Amino acid sequence: MKVGYLGPSGSFTHNVAVKAFPDDERMPFANITEVIKSYEEGVVDYAIIPVENSIEGSVHETLDYLFHQAKIEAVAEMIQPIKQQLLATSKDKKIEKIFSHPQAIAQGKKYIKAHYPNAQIEMTASTAYAARFIAENPAEPFAAIAPVAAAKEYGLEIIAKDIQEMDENYTRFWVLGRKKYAFELFKCQQKVSLALTLPDNLPGALYKALSVFAWRGINLTKIESRPLKTALGEYFFIVDIDNTNEALVTFALEELHLLGIDYKMLGNYDVYKL
Amino acid sequence: MKVGYLGPSGSFTHNVAVKAFPDDERMPFANITEVIKSYEEGVVDYAIIPVENSIEGSVHETLDYLFHQAKIEAVAEMIQPIKQQLLATSKDKKIEKIFSHPQAIAQGKKYIKAHYPNAQIEMTASTAYAARFIAENPAEPFAAIAPVAAAKEYGLEIIAKDIQEMDENYTRFWVLGRKKYAFELFKCQQKVSLALTLPDNLPGALYKALSVFAWRGINLTKIESRPLKTALGEYFFIVDIDNTNEALVTFALEELHLLGIDYKMLGNYDVYKL
Repeated sequence: MKVGYLGPSGSFTHNVAVKAFPDDERMPFANITEVIKSYEEGVVDYAIIPVENSIEGSVHETLDYLFHQAKIEAVAEMIQPIKQQLLATSKDKKIEKIFSHPQAIAQGKKYIKAHYPNAQIEMTASTAYAARFIAENPAEPFAAIAPVAAAKEYGLEIIAKDIQEMDENYTRFWVLGRKKYAFELFKCQQKVSLALTLPDNLPGALYKALSVFAWRGINLTKIESRPLKTALGEYFFIVDIDNTNEALVTFALEELHLLGIDYKMLGNYDVYKL
Repeated sequence: MKVGYLGPSGSFTHNVAVKAFPDDERMPFANITEVIKSYEEGVVDYAIIPVENSIEGSVHETLDYLFHQAKIEAVAEMIQPIKQQLLATSKDKKIEKIFSHPQAIAQGKKYIKAHYPNAQIEMTASTAYAARFIAENPAEPFAAIAPVAAAKEYGLEIIAKDIQEMDENYTRFWVLGRKKYAFELFKCQQKVSLALTLPDNLPGALYKALSVFAWRGINLTKIESRPLKTALGEYFFIVDIDNTNEALVTFALEELHLLGIDYKMLGNYDVYKL
């Protein structure tokens, strides 16, 4: 079986792919759109992409593509703790320039300020690219902020461990696929994710949509508006709901339709903690 | 009077500053945080920052800073249409590399693919920086995607006009200040923006918060969740409400407090169309 993921090797998504599909053929793609397309075109059987981080928020590229352009559902969610390391080609390296993804730079800001106040900062497309780049330039005074997996992948030393500011840093990843897969991982929740489009001619439409879940005691774990890209102030709504009582959720979804509220199913999935 | 804005000269925010405060001293700052800080520290009397674009969505740097770190309110909102131009130092320039902000690049993607399929793309921190950079390198085969104001500011030619993909492209800007200001512009709406923090021990808290507005017929123009940066799945909610009936909104806010739902006022403002 083939599994696509947001590459390169050593990225957080790669780490999820290794844990979820240890024995399958894993294929890296350069960006989120390419990963989703590889699945749409049948190049891979499952695809893994990031959806939301506890500090930075939703990954818009993922949610916008799934809403606007794809007919694909998430069949599993993986929650992974995010820990950042300062890496270099050797432990006694003089460090004048630090490379990483903007989110990782933001996460390591306090550490860098305290230990390398004069270092130049360079933004890269991902943490794994930063690691690969400094590994390819061992003569330069370079360091990278990246996960442990990137150190292993590119033969780098960990100069400082877990330099991220907040301990409570997690990312949600979705596994896209045609059917659920029984992962040998710790399952902690069942959820459904919907994208609601509200009719213009239904006053208080969002309130009514939420009522459908509220009076049944169905828990909402997330609600977020995203621009419909038509006009300012027109949104679709991403809603994650607890799917422990599947029959009750089925009734709620039927009632949404009866009220004239359209929804697109983004996923019906089990949640696993890594 | 001094007015801070997200610079440099020629940016969309600069354009708003010129229209809103034509006769005042306008000061550019390098990023959104610097603009807000200049206001907090009393360097400027008003500050102008982008809040939301109709295609890309909210500007998280603005909303997160105002929620987490500042005690500042928006006193006006300016809505500006966004139009992108392809600029170069002369009309017959050979174009091999195109510079711009990622959002403007995304907006002009179709045009570039059709007319400059082989051009290299370089991302910059803002459209105005891209314009300034190509103006400083007139011997190179460079072009930039930027607004009309940037062409004027840096003496560039417009090679192609309005290359953005969607016509319905608008950005909301907030004017931060201590008191409302009577702008000589077209006023179209009155709004209040709140950041709600929901108590853990109130089941269906979001639904209850929305009920406070719904049964009074107060229109919500936006609702969006942002991570609280504490744990995955903990959010605050940015809610924009129509403030045409101010007395009714006052009652609704009082009732929110009585229900145990905290809110931070992000702004109470008139909306102007530019």
